[in-house]
Amino acid sequence: MVTQTEIRQGTYYDSVVLMQLQKALADLPGVIDAGVVMATPANCDLLAASNLLVETTAGSDDLLIVVKAEDEATAQDALSQVDALMAARRSKASSTFRPRSLTSAVQQAPDAQWVLISVPGRYAADVARESLKLNKNVFLYSDNVSLEDEISLKHQAADKGLLVMGPDCGTAIINGIGLGFANRVRRGNIGLVGASGTGLQAITSEIHNLGGGVSQAIGTGGRDLKASVGAVTARQGLAYLMEDEETAVIVLVSKPPAAEVAARLLAAAQQTDKPVVVIFIGYPPPGRQIGNLYFATGLTEGAEIAVELSRELPALTPKEKASFSGYVRGLFSGGTLAYEALLGLQAILTPLYSNVPVHESQQMADPLESKGHAIIDLGEDIFTQGRLHPMMDNDLRLRRLRQEAADPETGLILLDVVLGEGAHADPAAELGPVIAEVIGERNLPVVAVVVGTEDDPQNVAAQVEQLEASGAVVFRKLPDALGYIAAAYQPEHLVKLPEVDSAAFQASFTAINVGLESFFDSLTTQEAHMVQVEWRPPAGGNEKLMALLAKMK
Amino acid sequence: MVTQTEIRQGTYYDSVVLMQLQKALADLPGVIDAGVVMATPANCDLLAASNLLVETTAGSDDLLIVVKAEDEATAQDALSQVDALMAARRSKASSTFRPRSLTSAVQQAPDAQWVLISVPGRYAADVARESLKLNKNVFLYSDNVSLEDEISLKHQAADKGLLVMGPDCGTAIINGIGLGFANRVRRGNIGLVGASGTGLQAITSEIHNLGGGVSQAIGTGGRDLKASVGAVTARQGLAYLMEDEETAVIVLVSKPPAAEVAARLLAAAQQTDKPVVVIFIGYPPPGRQIGNLYFATGLTEGAEIAVELSRELPALTPKEKASFSGYVRGLFSGGTLAYEALLGLQAILTPLYSNVPVHESQQMADPLESKGHAIIDLGEDIFTQGRLHPMMDNDLRLRRLRQEAADPETGLILLDVVLGEGAHADPAAELGPVIAEVIGERNLPVVAVVVGTEDDPQNVAAQVEQLEASGAVVFRKLPDALGYIAAAYQPEHLVKLPEVDSAAFQASFTAINVGLESFFDSLTTQEAHMVQVEWRPPAGGNEKLMALLAKMK
Repeated sequence: MVTQTEIRQGTYYDSVVLMQLQKALADLPGVIDAGVVMATPANCDLLAASNLLVETTAGSDDLLIVVKAEDEATAQDALSQVDALMAARRSKASSTFRPRSLTSAVQQAPDAQWVLISVPGRYAADVARESLKLNKNVFLYSDNVSLEDEISLKHQAADKGLLVMGPDCGTAIINGIGLGFANRVRRGNIGLVGASGTGLQAITSEIHNLGGGVSQAIGTGGRDLKASVGAVTARQGLAYLMEDEETAVIVLVSKPPAAEVAARLLAAAQQTDKPVVVIFIGYPPPGRQIGNLYFATGLTEGAEIAVELSRELPALTPKEKASFSGYVRGLFSGGTLAYEALLGLQAILTPLYSNVPVHESQQMADPLESKGHAIIDLGEDIFTQGRLHPMMDNDLRLRRLRQEAADPETGLILLDVVLGEGAHADPAAELGPVIAEVIGERNLPVVAVVVGTEDDPQNVAAQVEQLEASGAVVFRKLPDALGYIAAAYQPEHLVKLPEVDSAAFQASFTAINVGLESFFDSLTTQEAHMVQVEWRPPAGGNEKLMALLAKMK
Repeated sequence: MVTQTEIRQGTYYDSVVLMQLQKALADLPGVIDAGVVMATPANCDLLAASNLLVETTAGSDDLLIVVKAEDEATAQDALSQVDALMAARRSKASSTFRPRSLTSAVQQAPDAQWVLISVPGRYAADVARESLKLNKNVFLYSDNVSLEDEISLKHQAADKGLLVMGPDCGTAIINGIGLGFANRVRRGNIGLVGASGTGLQAITSEIHNLGGGVSQAIGTGGRDLKASVGAVTARQGLAYLMEDEETAVIVLVSKPPAAEVAARLLAAAQQTDKPVVVIFIGYPPPGRQIGNLYFATGLTEGAEIAVELSRELPALTPKEKASFSGYVRGLFSGGTLAYEALLGLQAILTPLYSNVPVHESQQMADPLESKGHAIIDLGEDIFTQGRLHPMMDNDLRLRRLRQEAADPETGLILLDVVLGEGAHADPAAELGPVIAEVIGERNLPVVAVVVGTEDDPQNVAAQVEQLEASGAVVFRKLPDALGYIAAAYQPEHLVKLPEVDSAAFQASFTAINVGLESFFDSLTTQEAHMVQVEWRPPAGGNEKLMALLAKMK
């Protein structure tokens, strides 16, 4: 058994070509195995792991061909056929005229709204920049693009109302045309924004399998929801779907986003009447539903909720039509209720502080004085040392209620009233008058959550009645109270969303493909109008020469 | 308006007494406000915030009485009534004989299974230790107990099969008797373990309100699920409920636990056939259901799921009755599917590694070689540099499939097969034969998840058929595949759970109360047999003397 290698220095081939060549070589008689790769360290490791290589002088820009055969003659013979095998492969793209530059491709298809880019990462940002200059939206499939390039490309695009989906964007569906990897799904009223390619695939497939349909599926690339990128593309996508008449339900999908990015995105998503299904996989959900936001624990469930909503659009009816602005101040006797309230409200209120923070950044500087939105657990050690728990003793809470009411920045007060054995015998009798006083003074809304049963010694019905008589809006379950607050909250400043030129989504889809020919083939099959660029690395892949050329520009 | 203060050095009073005194003082004619607190710094701040105090020489062990009145005479008169007001208050406990020590209380009620402790934190650990020596289970309401004391108390207790619920345990329901703060709920077949007092209250209330009932509700204290405590009490509680014939459904509730503690607890919870509803508030749920584990996003939803399950107990029927041991190796082409699989399986498999880790500790040392359970995203940069994405090119996956099959530690292989535009035209044709080969060699189970629609170019039905023909167990949704794996997995070593002496839960509830008299009153009302200890701080609260006494023991 013999292993022979051939190195072609500084040669570029499309990865599809490499795969086809590898398969063709491996299929030759007498050949046991073959490897055809750009000789990156990782690829060399992989070849070694497959017993296809021990040592080589090839570098990342070199094409490395390895053949393992029964004998030397067979191996040599296989290597000598490489050029012939290369010439034999053909794609649909090869049979049409292919411009050699993006500029001439645009001359050929001036109406193209999109450029699809799948060249190797180190060349991709330049192609994307050129596309934006030519006023084209970009689907950037390439990975290994730097974060700095991503940030600059996205800001440049957003300034022009253009989209950059990616880098490393695997999947999108624009006007029924699947870009990259995309399942064939029926068109419908569910619009998606996804920082996850397979996430979008799994959800759109399941939507289709459940009988629902997709208006648009906008990919963002996996890093879009990082703090440094700031969800530029996701916010553009959201802005478009919020206005889009064909979209009735919105789905947001991502691996866990940066906390502040999530809060901003969710605050923006609150500004539409459309239901928004949020699937932040691995992100602790703030509850099942907060206002128009529905939280799913995974892809499949997200699809189920979206399809259900797309059929029977819910009327958002808060218990009582209400609205308020200013800060929410939550005064809790129950620690876990405080925590659950914080978890729910952090999705929509900012800045939000607490003495039982979920994130360190939410830590209250001084638990005795609220700033911004605040959720305070009055059962924490600092409040209970040497005095009774607030479930037994309302004194501290009454004082704090008055204190919060005196703060002109307070817009709503949220309370829990926990009944049961061991608790105060009649909390409503003490809380009610102060609530009435607070509401009377400046019409400050007070929301109370009563936890208890009809068998509790306090008589839950009487407690609810007393609290309602004092003017409080009373709920028996915390999520209901949070939903009420979410629906009634009028933020002082709306979250501003970047705009997208709707040309990106216009009916006739025309695109220029730079990179993998298989994407050209796939989109042509889907009846998109496509132009393939005959792309070669600038300066023949010679990095020094490339750097020199870049300086001369 | 005049403010007058009185300090009583080194005096101890039950906080209920303090509250009652404060209210009585404030109710006197001419008195505007009053404060009665142990003069901890926090309490002094609170008094100051209520304009009841500026400066004082009182320390944490001193009783501080503040009266704000219309004039000096009224304030003086109020302070002079303190002793009379103290004497006037009476609880049911005061009217019966009260032993002065725990030992004599035990002589009075030798059958008592429980000691309830609500003395100030710095004395509480000693009382708990004494209770354990006397072979009593402990309900430790007191907060401000050190973590070191908690750990030593819990291990000491577990060695004897005794429970320590707490410190800072607000709520428990034992045999229908509510300890601490507890709602009156009907008895039934739902058993709870909770590291959260209000969590237990909110859930048990909602269970009752929905028509369900509670067998036992075992509190653990808020720190039990920290890594350093290791969930000793939660695991004891779980062990008891798993065996308890009256419990059909188990509920676990906590603020987010330490990751390794969560994994251990969930692995243990997998060892019962009973459904377990998990409410780790703020913990990213691994999915809606994994085997017998049901994940809720909040308290209310947790109660709903538990009640539903308690009525219609689900038969756990995996798609095909199967079992395997050894490591799970997941070879994914879809990044988000890999992540979702990791998130789901981390709840039950350990040690689990990945090249797309949820926690840093899960990072694979070498993505090219699996160790332990492993979920590998073959679409990551290291695998795709200079070669095609695994959705287009199966080569890498086929090699890895054979590599994993050759590892004797591999127990099951999990694959995704993502169809659609842009993807390989017939992945099953390439994967199928290798799956058949792998299964043929050593009967290694292979589970495949096929993502796609019937309109996809690959023909999803034919793909599923080919994969099934090769011997793979095929699912169309990832959660179904994870559920199958969870049900079939036979860990090499069962998670050992600590034992609990069932005496703690015996029918006739008898307890000794050390601390707040209101708890004595509450339990007596609930027809528990109670003995109240006439507790006073050792050495009159003199810390130096206490330290001396401790050394002499």
